[in-house]
Amino acid sequence: MTLAAGIDVGGTKCLGVVVDEHGAIVRQARRPTPHGQAAMLHVLAGLAHELAPFDSLGIGVPGLVTLTGTLRAAPNLVDVRELAIGPRLSERLGHPVAVDNDATCAAAAEWRHGAGRGATDMVMVTLGTGIGGGIIAGGQLQRGANGFAGEIGHIVVHPDGPPCPCGRRGCWERYASGSGLGRLAQEAAAAGVLATVLENVGDVGSIRGEDLQLAARDGDIEALEVIDDYGRWVALGLVNLTNILDPSIFVLGGGLAVSSDLYLGPIKKWFIRLLYSPDHRPHPALEFAQLGSEAGAIGASLLPQLQT
Amino acid sequence: MTLAAGIDVGGTKCLGVVVDEHGAIVRQARRPTPHGQAAMLHVLAGLAHELAPFDSLGIGVPGLVTLTGTLRAAPNLVDVRELAIGPRLSERLGHPVAVDNDATCAAAAEWRHGAGRGATDMVMVTLGTGIGGGIIAGGQLQRGANGFAGEIGHIVVHPDGPPCPCGRRGCWERYASGSGLGRLAQEAAAAGVLATVLENVGDVGSIRGEDLQLAARDGDIEALEVIDDYGRWVALGLVNLTNILDPSIFVLGGGLAVSSDLYLGPIKKWFIRLLYSPDHRPHPALEFAQLGSEAGAIGASLLPQLQT
Repeated sequence: MTLAAGIDVGGTKCLGVVVDEHGAIVRQARRPTPHGQAAMLHVLAGLAHELAPFDSLGIGVPGLVTLTGTLRAAPNLVDVRELAIGPRLSERLGHPVAVDNDATCAAAAEWRHGAGRGATDMVMVTLGTGIGGGIIAGGQLQRGANGFAGEIGHIVVHPDGPPCPCGRRGCWERYASGSGLGRLAQEAAAAGVLATVLENVGDVGSIRGEDLQLAARDGDIEALEVIDDYGRWVALGLVNLTNILDPSIFVLGGGLAVSSDLYLGPIKKWFIRLLYSPDHRPHPALEFAQLGSEAGAIGASLLPQLQT
Repeated sequence: MTLAAGIDVGGTKCLGVVVDEHGAIVRQARRPTPHGQAAMLHVLAGLAHELAPFDSLGIGVPGLVTLTGTLRAAPNLVDVRELAIGPRLSERLGHPVAVDNDATCAAAAEWRHGAGRGATDMVMVTLGTGIGGGIIAGGQLQRGANGFAGEIGHIVVHPDGPPCPCGRRGCWERYASGSGLGRLAQEAAAAGVLATVLENVGDVGSIRGEDLQLAARDGDIEALEVIDDYGRWVALGLVNLTNILDPSIFVLGGGLAVSSDLYLGPIKKWFIRLLYSPDHRPHPALEFAQLGSEAGAIGASLLPQLQT
């Protein structure tokens, strides 16, 4: 039996797993995510020792990762940048260590063991604080020329839209991420709708996506309308990706996948309305992720066999 | 010596070529593009006979082409739709016929024999009346799950933008194609700039991209400003594609490639300004196509070996 180890580095914790050929987790371990370069390498090496024995090791990290396993920019990690995680851990551990972006790892996991099994062309979209992505095209996990493929959250969908921390305006994740949902809700409240939500929360600036979800589940029509608008923005980006990549399936993950029942209807409705040439093509399936919070670690364990 | 035949079906003419292993054209033939399904098959079979002998045949057509070689929708052909070009010609000619979208063919040609030689990740963007595209990712020509990958002209870059014949609003080709350039010029003239151009042309509605180019070459500052704005829209789409696919090179083709000297500066300037995380990544090269009007036919000849 081949055992593949994977570690998912998150903003707050690092989750390590050892996975068998069927994607079943046979061991796991976790540590808080440390601050700083040396501490990061130390914690990852410690997790690797704790997970041993295994036949291969892959690591998923949030941010831009080069083809040779260097983490360039990582906005959600503290004091970590330009860190050659792959080469330095390989040297310390004495065996190869494959490294890639965490959303790419989640895509790999859902492709091999989750909602995207069997697809040759699949796009994974993680709707969380931001939007991450991973692309399977032509039966291969795509990394791009430099390892940075799949930064789909920063597709500009409205050049005069709200500013994005990336320095531009109107990035897709300003509308279609979890924080984008909160922003849409705040905009609606400021425009005088969502009275009930506003009353419960107290002030416009404190309204979050979760408040909107609660109201929608109570049948608040205005909250449902904001969720419909949110579904339109999600669909707009999915349609753009369809025009470029023509996948047979989108797998939607991230925090919003937990409440998929609220979102799937609006997203599907708008997807069909916005699709280019809808009468002349099969429509890609829209599915929510199946592997939950372990997708990143499971996907990291697949990197050694998928990176080409 | 292996001889590969390729036919490029355009809106007005069909160009057939026979190409050697180095991409050199050893024979060619052309016919006017006919109207109607039966006439189309007849002309293509006739061209194939005229081009013979050859070892393989590929055909590029404008529109959505399925993986099995059926042309679904073809807005620029008269009375041709849902035509099983590949299967029906194969039967008539007695040998396999590979069929794909014309922009995909141009991408294949530039990848193998033109500006994109040696790249593993390349995007071809044809800036003509509309915008077409072809994608090389992970060293493979990408077709998508249904054959429709690369419809990049219909990426929505402004949801409240001008209506597109596709039925939606704000598609990239409303801004960044040749006709988009004309529209930007008309908008500028309607807003009171481009006085010299307007005086020469007579009325706002008659201003075309070519008029703007002429004025820009004469040093008309306002015309150069519209071209700068056009460059921003081209760059915006290229940046979106970079975020998704991380190519090492964009190859820009189509009618505007003829005046590449006017556009390359503005496109490059805006590309760097709009790029996500520009300090942490190599910037893709922006090159104009090298194979000119024969790219489509040369690329069609490559289809039998590239379609997987």
